Amino acid sequence: MAESVSRTVYFVSESTGITAEAYGLSLLSQFADARFVKRYTPFINTREKAQALANELAHRAEAEGEKPIVFATMVDEEINAVIKHAECHYFELFERFMPELVEVVGQAPSHKSGVSHGVTNLENYEARIETINYALSNDDGMRLNKFHKADVILIGVSRSGKTPTCLYLALHFGMRAANYPITEEDFEKGDLPDELLEHKQKIFALTIEPERLAAIRELRRPDSDYASLRRCYKECQMAQDMFHRHSLTVLDSTTHSIEELASLIKKSL
Amino acid sequence: MAESVSRTVYFVSESTGITAEAYGLSLLSQFADARFVKRYTPFINTREKAQALANELAHRAEAEGEKPIVFATMVDEEINAVIKHAECHYFELFERFMPELVEVVGQAPSHKSGVSHGVTNLENYEARIETINYALSNDDGMRLNKFHKADVILIGVSRSGKTPTCLYLALHFGMRAANYPITEEDFEKGDLPDELLEHKQKIFALTIEPERLAAIRELRRPDSDYASLRRCYKECQMAQDMFHRHSLTVLDSTTHSIEELASLIKKSL
Repeated sequence: MAESVSRTVYFVSESTGITAEAYGLSLLSQFADARFVKRYTPFINTREKAQALANELAHRAEAEGEKPIVFATMVDEEINAVIKHAECHYFELFERFMPELVEVVGQAPSHKSGVSHGVTNLENYEARIETINYALSNDDGMRLNKFHKADVILIGVSRSGKTPTCLYLALHFGMRAANYPITEEDFEKGDLPDELLEHKQKIFALTIEPERLAAIRELRRPDSDYASLRRCYKECQMAQDMFHRHSLTVLDSTTHSIEELASLIKKSL
Repeated sequence: MAESVSRTVYFVSESTGITAEAYGLSLLSQFADARFVKRYTPFINTREKAQALANELAHRAEAEGEKPIVFATMVDEEINAVIKHAECHYFELFERFMPELVEVVGQAPSHKSGVSHGVTNLENYEARIETINYALSNDDGMRLNKFHKADVILIGVSRSGKTPTCLYLALHFGMRAANYPITEEDFEKGDLPDELLEHKQKIFALTIEPERLAAIRELRRPDSDYASLRRCYKECQMAQDMFHRHSLTVLDSTTHSIEELASLIKKSL
């Protein structure tokens, strides 16, 4: 098979398809030189929809001369059978793991779809929405007195990655994540506020390379003092000193993605 | 095995563990009556860390009289072997799918970890951060003139779920999602602004049951007119009329989670 030919990949599920996409992309990420055209087909929750998709797969297999690759999570056996027997290379999560897992857990599976990403428990769901609102309303440290309610507090200079990481912590892990940007006043005083340092055990300090910071700030306010390399160097250095003085847990947002930062934070608690 | 006994489950990865957690939770969600204690151990990226985890698993197996369940994504064969041979029920993603997928793709896997959730491509990564900032800066419709840059525009009454859904679209799917809350002025005028309706093809209108809306608003502003059932009924009715009049795509946020709403939106584009 020529390396330059792109393969069509489908992510299929009776529900959101989030799990099918997650594990499928993870497997595909191992093929750095291959090209994949991704098609996303969630909510295949009736035999009719499954049959329509099977027809599409057959059509595509014929047009492309290669059967499409399908990553799926299907809990209904009948719907699963329709896709499984269609013209595709079928990679289905439940079939491969469930028989052994049923043995280990010692219980029969429910065969209900949409349990992991639906509104199955209204109370839990609302608590999660609340953590998102918490992250938003406690963004940019407007309310120093609200930190006692936080699970974690992210601190760092402006544009060091606090907000996206807080939102990821809230959306993905349901954590109450507040954020405190080091202010002009803190730099003048040369230290962090006492109200913040009271909560030292839940603070994670983000560092970033001054060059990267300057590039990010430049997009926001071109040609400003705020985006100048000189100012970025100075802020990063002063922030680093404060983090060190208070022995705070420091994470580098230059080399870590928001998912990695969030995972490191979750792991450290 | 008694149903009330809880089993210990580990999510293990050389990188963030996000994929291991996603597919593991999806499988576990099929056992409604079982109780699981979840342990999250990302960044097991050396043989030493793997050995330490293997020791922990052995210790736990002995203490609990049951081997823990492990969901893992491991691309390094040596590190994988350490956990695989530890005292656990081992469910590993790559081993189960990779041999067949390698055949289908016709290429050797890279065995690199952290590809799917790391900063592997700085340009893509920064574009993703930019979509999050876009969602935040275009939250609550402050800038009607910015809608031409949006991939999608979510509209609905205050607290109908627009913001969390926009953030999920940005964080998870990298989409530029703007949001427009129907304003007091729109209700008085009885219609949506023309600047918004110009972008009709990318509008998704969120509906919500008035009772649910009132409960959500009550948490925000207790005993207010804003949270009253009367006002919620009226706003929902008027919004529904506007959506219908302009034949907008309508999604119900009462019965759909933010993941489901985001998946439905992605699918419809």
